[in-house]
Amino acid sequence: MSGETNRLVQLGKDISGANTFAREMDVLTASGEQVSIALLSMALQRLGLSAKSMLGDQVAIKTDSAFGKARISHIETNALRAALEAGAIPVVAGFQGVDPNGDLTTLGRGGSDTSAVALAAALGADECEICTDVDGVYTADPRVVASARRLSQVTFEEMLELASLGSKVLHPRSVEFAGRYRVPLRVMSTFVDGDGTLITIENDNMEQPLVSGIAHARDEAKLTVAGVPDIPGIASKILGPVGRANVEVDMIVQNTGADGLTDFTFTVKREDYDRARDLLETVAKEIHAREINGDNTIAKVSIVGVGMRSHAGVATRMFDCLASENINIQMISTSEIKISVVVAEKYMELAVRALHSEFDLENS
Amino acid sequence: MSGETNRLVQLGKDISGANTFAREMDVLTASGEQVSIALLSMALQRLGLSAKSMLGDQVAIKTDSAFGKARISHIETNALRAALEAGAIPVVAGFQGVDPNGDLTTLGRGGSDTSAVALAAALGADECEICTDVDGVYTADPRVVASARRLSQVTFEEMLELASLGSKVLHPRSVEFAGRYRVPLRVMSTFVDGDGTLITIENDNMEQPLVSGIAHARDEAKLTVAGVPDIPGIASKILGPVGRANVEVDMIVQNTGADGLTDFTFTVKREDYDRARDLLETVAKEIHAREINGDNTIAKVSIVGVGMRSHAGVATRMFDCLASENINIQMISTSEIKISVVVAEKYMELAVRALHSEFDLENS
Repeated sequence: MSGETNRLVQLGKDISGANTFAREMDVLTASGEQVSIALLSMALQRLGLSAKSMLGDQVAIKTDSAFGKARISHIETNALRAALEAGAIPVVAGFQGVDPNGDLTTLGRGGSDTSAVALAAALGADECEICTDVDGVYTADPRVVASARRLSQVTFEEMLELASLGSKVLHPRSVEFAGRYRVPLRVMSTFVDGDGTLITIENDNMEQPLVSGIAHARDEAKLTVAGVPDIPGIASKILGPVGRANVEVDMIVQNTGADGLTDFTFTVKREDYDRARDLLETVAKEIHAREINGDNTIAKVSIVGVGMRSHAGVATRMFDCLASENINIQMISTSEIKISVVVAEKYMELAVRALHSEFDLENS
Repeated sequence: MSGETNRLVQLGKDISGANTFAREMDVLTASGEQVSIALLSMALQRLGLSAKSMLGDQVAIKTDSAFGKARISHIETNALRAALEAGAIPVVAGFQGVDPNGDLTTLGRGGSDTSAVALAAALGADECEICTDVDGVYTADPRVVASARRLSQVTFEEMLELASLGSKVLHPRSVEFAGRYRVPLRVMSTFVDGDGTLITIENDNMEQPLVSGIAHARDEAKLTVAGVPDIPGIASKILGPVGRANVEVDMIVQNTGADGLTDFTFTVKREDYDRARDLLETVAKEIHAREINGDNTIAKVSIVGVGMRSHAGVATRMFDCLASENINIQMISTSEIKISVVVAEKYMELAVRALHSEFDLENS
């Protein structure tokens, strides 16, 4: 059923024109998972298993009324438990729920994985298994690093950083949800046997490698507003119009010079580059910025690991490694368990391979 | 969205193999109208109208639990009336309902029209308008009879006979429902302006023409079990296995000869001919029938009109008309407001045109 939701969204957009009819869009797109659960239940029954499809409102998965991006408020477990006790496999429609008015809602992108985690949490399940097209989370993208290794365990926090940095295994929202409700989450393959990768809370008994994985994100772009007066409120003056235009901003770096002027740099998805640049041209005049610079041939490379917290010197090792390969670092951004750098896109693969080797990920 | 239900049914059959998973098939096929109501609501809203899609269980349209062919037991009108009072156009999913267990059901073929009529009945509407791809009910198929005329009014009973006899304007079930609940039903075109045809209860003020229309059904076949002992229960012995194989039997004629033997003839859809014939070969041995004959190149032609009730001689006029064209009548079946004959398929158009002219339908 791959591509079905996109097909439905397109149908809706064709009819809606420039408008957004959010309630109806949810009625439309929720039909996709309805088809899937019916077909999966049939397939299970054909194998001689008892199975029962359940729609969001039949479970019921209660949400708020934010059509297209609803949040789950509560999941009833009576109907689910009744099905389980009757020996049936409940095949629940993900991505959808029902709001207090009885209106159908959808959870937005990542909604299906989030539904699964929420059901596991509501039922107090031992583990939530997500079967997908990869067999686990790797130390780096195997297409880039041939010696990349499947991780048997990773923490929620690491997974969040890896997921949001381009390792498209699980949607960050589902990982966040699993972390909040402490639902052990296992990513495994639909097609091949194996234990996959268990995403779980930090465990003292777990080996804590310094770095768990190298993530990368291609198709990035950066924009710099140079020579901006360094006064309070300038960041929101610059980013406000960008955010209102639904352009997602990722890294943000601000350096103050000696002249009371500052350079403000941020990254966006490459597809949003032209639009963001246009917006900035207007803003630049208002705030009397000197100029706008941009580059839409950059990539982001990150090292992620909870072990970093307690080990100094990881950043230095990363920067030295890149320098020894003659890769120039354009931007740096750090969090407790992650260091991200922006480099020219052409160096991306080289950077990922060098760092994978530097932190000995093929063997640890 | 034409063909969507068939596409979904095929998906379900592909997965189910030789099995029938009725509950899940309904979950699957109900998604088609869900898509349609969302798209229609969007289209109406884009035109500046207030519209609100409503699923079967949101209305609620309560049915029994006969998946795939559920019967409507009751329709709640509170949610509908609330939408109407708020000035919104309720766009209700046809073909679907919800059973006492909260399971999704579908009404089977003709279900969408039936839903519309049931809603009109529940709301006490003045009229139920069905917009379709033809602009009304004609005295005969205009592709066969160039001078066929659109009827401004027709009775429920006439419409039932016309519909079940091959004038595929409305599904008989919806007409039956409208008749039972006395909901005036108007068939009109989605694409061109016009009053369409009003289907209503008999009215003394209405002109009652002798014959309202000529219906025909191509793709028929007949089977004769010849030389059967004329004893009680023989009809069910012959038709039992046919019915259990889901072959729909239409006309049934039985003639008793002088020798205590009888010939038993019935018609089926042409696509069921081979299957029905195979079944009969087995039955024929059990009941010691002399032989099985069949013809799969026949058609059915019928004249329909409530006026027949009070006028003798209509049948004679029909038979004389066909005889004067040298058309042999193979079977005859009559009801209060209909006379059907089976003729060789090649004479079908000629028979329809001759009868249309005989009963002066182009002018009345």
